[in-house]
Amino acid sequence: MSDRLPDSHSVEVARERIATMIRATPLVEDELLNERLGGRLLVKLESLQRSGSFKIRGALSALTAMNAEVRRRGVIAFSSGNHAIAVATATRLLGIHATIIMPADAPAIKIARARANGAKVVTYDRATEDREALCASIAAEQDLVTIKPFDDAQVIAGQGTIGLEIAEQAAAMGATLDAVVVPCSGGGLAAGCALALGGRIPGAQVLTSEPTGFDDMARSLAGEEGVVNTQVAGSVCDALLVSSPGHLTLQILRATGARGAVVSDQDALDAVRMALHTFKVVVEPGGAVGLAAVLTGKVNLAGKTVAVILSGGNIDATMLARALGGANE
Amino acid sequence: MSDRLPDSHSVEVARERIATMIRATPLVEDELLNERLGGRLLVKLESLQRSGSFKIRGALSALTAMNAEVRRRGVIAFSSGNHAIAVATATRLLGIHATIIMPADAPAIKIARARANGAKVVTYDRATEDREALCASIAAEQDLVTIKPFDDAQVIAGQGTIGLEIAEQAAAMGATLDAVVVPCSGGGLAAGCALALGGRIPGAQVLTSEPTGFDDMARSLAGEEGVVNTQVAGSVCDALLVSSPGHLTLQILRATGARGAVVSDQDALDAVRMALHTFKVVVEPGGAVGLAAVLTGKVNLAGKTVAVILSGGNIDATMLARALGGANE
Repeated sequence: MSDRLPDSHSVEVARERIATMIRATPLVEDELLNERLGGRLLVKLESLQRSGSFKIRGALSALTAMNAEVRRRGVIAFSSGNHAIAVATATRLLGIHATIIMPADAPAIKIARARANGAKVVTYDRATEDREALCASIAAEQDLVTIKPFDDAQVIAGQGTIGLEIAEQAAAMGATLDAVVVPCSGGGLAAGCALALGGRIPGAQVLTSEPTGFDDMARSLAGEEGVVNTQVAGSVCDALLVSSPGHLTLQILRATGARGAVVSDQDALDAVRMALHTFKVVVEPGGAVGLAAVLTGKVNLAGKTVAVILSGGNIDATMLARALGGANE
Repeated sequence: MSDRLPDSHSVEVARERIATMIRATPLVEDELLNERLGGRLLVKLESLQRSGSFKIRGALSALTAMNAEVRRRGVIAFSSGNHAIAVATATRLLGIHATIIMPADAPAIKIARARANGAKVVTYDRATEDREALCASIAAEQDLVTIKPFDDAQVIAGQGTIGLEIAEQAAAMGATLDAVVVPCSGGGLAAGCALALGGRIPGAQVLTSEPTGFDDMARSLAGEEGVVNTQVAGSVCDALLVSSPGHLTLQILRATGARGAVVSDQDALDAVRMALHTFKVVVEPGGAVGLAAVLTGKVNLAGKTVAVILSGGNIDATMLARALGGANE
């Protein structure tokens, strides 16, 4: 693992290591939606990625950058869901042993998927236990390297490979991007995209989107220092519940002029339903906050060409039924 | 429109005409599912196609094969749904006027989508009116050419382009296909795929899948002549309710050694739910009958490599909620 700041070259190199193990997900648009929004919206269907979210890009990038001795000993990770499934899937593909620390109240489908991929899942109580301390203790005891969820140079570089795909696919569609809207938790995906776009389409701005109550990145990008969310739970966007931005990710996003939008839980659920009817994809609420920012006008599309990432699709049937409960489109 | 029999070359030529207007949809697999089924299942996510189903391939193929004078006058089509949306979308893309005849009880989302794409929709009563006679009368009155839903050489050639994509994508995944399982109504998609595969992977067999009560193709492929389904409605697979196979399509499928499977409505709904959780895509029941045939073992995957087409995703929220009502996976 590395604390140095990755750059656009790191993303290109990460792609060479992981390309054969990931899916190049589609970038699509709907002309009727474009007409309604008054601009051009390109939608990256990353919810179709292996493991059900973009997180496998970063996990594979980190794992393939390790030396053989470290890989032989095995790795450990903590995550409420998508990073867990991603590390479990990536280690299965590479034949590495993985231990994953997950909160006992994580969506059942996410715990089940991590286990189904052969990872050893250790659960903890979100209210009374400190997952980072638990992870550090097991890691020290068993001599395991931790695959961080976002604040790691190789993880950021891996997530950035989605930005390279977007740049190439947009060009093939004859589109010149003004911005890319990215669901944001710790900022790994947004920072990686910012690096990738900086090397390919310097004019395109990265805009993060977060749920209400978890707007630490938006506030940090607006200039506040040391932002920590007061809430620790309570959003339907279970994938986006970190307390503060990563150090590396915030540094990269500030340097590249990123800005942040904030949407409500209902906005996210409406975007889940809309993606389902218009693009025929299953997206989880946290993966739909970028689309929600566009649909609610918090990111203005008028006269612009904007890409938005649908970043994950690991949603329980009950939550999906709740999203479907709104008006049929 | 042409009544001559298309061949593998017709499919290659159709692809040249329509390639820039369609999406090359992903072909994916899930290793854990493969382990469970004891074979290799490649899933073609054609439900992500523009217009929400494969039907736009055939519509664009037919429209681009017409001369300018015919296109200037406009076209007409009859369909309970996916062919309607496809013709509406394709004519919008090409700037051609379209009239579409749809049953008044077609899924609301399908009628709305056809209208949203600018087509003039004329509804009729499925129980008392004859849609083909209605179509012929309007066509004669307004001098319009009919875009048939399946029994037309150019339509079949267009649907076959999905077979070319599958052949290329499977090769890129290092897979040698034993069979391709195709949801079947009139047989346009299955016949087109049979032609495409015949030109690329002669060893791969086409297997059709139909819902119980609408197994006219399976019975015809098993040797029966003049098969007509006794039911005209009553399956959740609203996209697959034809009364008998097309003449051209049956001729092609018999010549290429195709065979047919039959699944229940519940099998189809279970496959919808499974596709949703495993592949994160929204599929309509009629689009999931191929997957249902594999999951129920009606198409045996043991030791085989099989591709299955998820052919459409235009499903109402109520039907999706019904499919989700089963066990969470």
